[in-house]
Amino acid sequence: MANQHVTRIVLASRPSGMPAAANFRLERETVRDLAEGEILLQILYLSLDPYMRGRMDDAKSYAKPIEVDGVMEGGTVARVVRTRNAVFNPGDIVLSHSGWQSHAISNGSDLKKLDPGEAPITTALGILGMPGFTAYAGLRNIGKPKAGETLVVAAASGAVGSAVGQIARIFGSRVVGIAGGREKCAYLRDELGFDAAIDHRSSDFPAELAVACPEGIDIYFENVGGHVWSAVFPLLNDFARVPVCGLIAHYNEGASNGQDQLPAVMRAILRKSLTLRGFIQREFADQRPDFYREAGAWIAEGRLKYKEDIVDGLENAPDAFLGLLEGRNFGKLIIRVGS
Amino acid sequence: MANQHVTRIVLASRPSGMPAAANFRLERETVRDLAEGEILLQILYLSLDPYMRGRMDDAKSYAKPIEVDGVMEGGTVARVVRTRNAVFNPGDIVLSHSGWQSHAISNGSDLKKLDPGEAPITTALGILGMPGFTAYAGLRNIGKPKAGETLVVAAASGAVGSAVGQIARIFGSRVVGIAGGREKCAYLRDELGFDAAIDHRSSDFPAELAVACPEGIDIYFENVGGHVWSAVFPLLNDFARVPVCGLIAHYNEGASNGQDQLPAVMRAILRKSLTLRGFIQREFADQRPDFYREAGAWIAEGRLKYKEDIVDGLENAPDAFLGLLEGRNFGKLIIRVGS
Repeated sequence: MANQHVTRIVLASRPSGMPAAANFRLERETVRDLAEGEILLQILYLSLDPYMRGRMDDAKSYAKPIEVDGVMEGGTVARVVRTRNAVFNPGDIVLSHSGWQSHAISNGSDLKKLDPGEAPITTALGILGMPGFTAYAGLRNIGKPKAGETLVVAAASGAVGSAVGQIARIFGSRVVGIAGGREKCAYLRDELGFDAAIDHRSSDFPAELAVACPEGIDIYFENVGGHVWSAVFPLLNDFARVPVCGLIAHYNEGASNGQDQLPAVMRAILRKSLTLRGFIQREFADQRPDFYREAGAWIAEGRLKYKEDIVDGLENAPDAFLGLLEGRNFGKLIIRVGS
Repeated sequence: MANQHVTRIVLASRPSGMPAAANFRLERETVRDLAEGEILLQILYLSLDPYMRGRMDDAKSYAKPIEVDGVMEGGTVARVVRTRNAVFNPGDIVLSHSGWQSHAISNGSDLKKLDPGEAPITTALGILGMPGFTAYAGLRNIGKPKAGETLVVAAASGAVGSAVGQIARIFGSRVVGIAGGREKCAYLRDELGFDAAIDHRSSDFPAELAVACPEGIDIYFENVGGHVWSAVFPLLNDFARVPVCGLIAHYNEGASNGQDQLPAVMRAILRKSLTLRGFIQREFADQRPDFYREAGAWIAEGRLKYKEDIVDGLENAPDAFLGLLEGRNFGKLIIRVGS
């Protein structure tokens, strides 16, 4: 079976500020033959997530940057096409981290078999995957939601934010979501049962947030930074916890000027006994079995809902990714790469 | 027994920026008669601590501000002079929170008897008091020192800092102290056994700190802020913990301009999975028995040393306090009020 081709999207150049189409390049190549123990995967779905912006820089981070000319990385759901590995059979559906490409070769060590009868396979990239577990781990280990407390989450209609809000409600917290636009806010209130939802694009956003949080904020799940942080910060209560999960507003900015906000933030950390804690879900990997069990039950009971925004075609991944950074998606953004 | 007088220092006006002598006023008054159950205390020692600067403002905080014309607050060691309370006898030595004054009346509920045979009574204001417990609680609950890790503490020759460094060494951490001046640095190295000590007044301070921390910083016990934080921040390792205990560099400053450092700090919190956590020792009050037991043993074993800087006369408290804010004291600052 020669002549199998792989299409892939590589990092053509590092962006400075907001990425553009020119930072990506689509390539085609012939797939090599499999060695003993190897598996050829056809990618069905590719997850697009904000963290990928960070990987495009060569800044020091917990993760290595993507090399220039290297394949853009990302979580994927794939089908086994050919196999020289006894553990995997043709037709098996697996979770992999194969990146922005149509096919990939694996030795099997990085694959997790999925049961399509148990849950839609795209959920392995969203509510039952990395974003869902990020929400769970950040709340369980840092946010620690309690009954009667107020939790605020930004990017609240996104893959992580929507799970954060719903899980906090399961633990009895009052949940206020922040999102961009009336449609997303209505979704949070009407579909997900958030106690309130505030549009951060409103000219009166800080005042509206304050009204929605009459008893202050006990947990702020930080996905955004920027002007959302500025509105949240004065409302934080004594002993508030701030899991810092993402800073999408800062990913594309350079050095900023104006007033130095750091002294005021440090003073508040001191005076209010605040906790700010950055994290990635990987650190809490030993809690994944708990997550699958609990989240699976919550979904079955209808207490944990999710929304997917599926875009067709790998070639559309760069544009969809830029839209993600601007908040154009509505729900977990996934590329349908093959079928 | 009429005609007993009390001398006290009140807050004459709120400072803007660095306090000055004019913000304090010395008053004399006659002591009223005791009611049933009350005790008249003669203050022997008054503790001066950086947190008092915060109480002089009327900013929202975990503690109520001192009222204008109110007695400056503070921890004290006192002797029972007269008593109409069966629990206390004349001559008893007690720990109280009587503030900047020569005498005080108490109903006994806020007093803790001290045994002068067990430890010098001034230690109840320092190494075996609030500052020592602050060091212990911040390390135990937030810093979590481990063998082989590097801890950095600023204001390292002060009451809290010197305890932080020595306790972290007991737990096997490598300890680097930051202090102002060669004499204090020599004390940290030669008397307290710190692994290194750096003078923050050195023109090459950030580079010297980096050389002293070749494997980065795992715990930064924050007492200071300002340019010390700026030097520490780039050296923080992944998963570093920052107990925020004080910010003496910021207590007297107004709004600052120049580059906004907050985005860079938030990005580092995210990328390095940092923990920043403000605290006051009161929050961990249930650990005080552990502290007395452990710290008492460490002192007896010669592993936990302390230095006191005792100034004579209540009338000298304002000037000594201003010196504390400027780092002029050397060791735990205590006023000898009476004898």
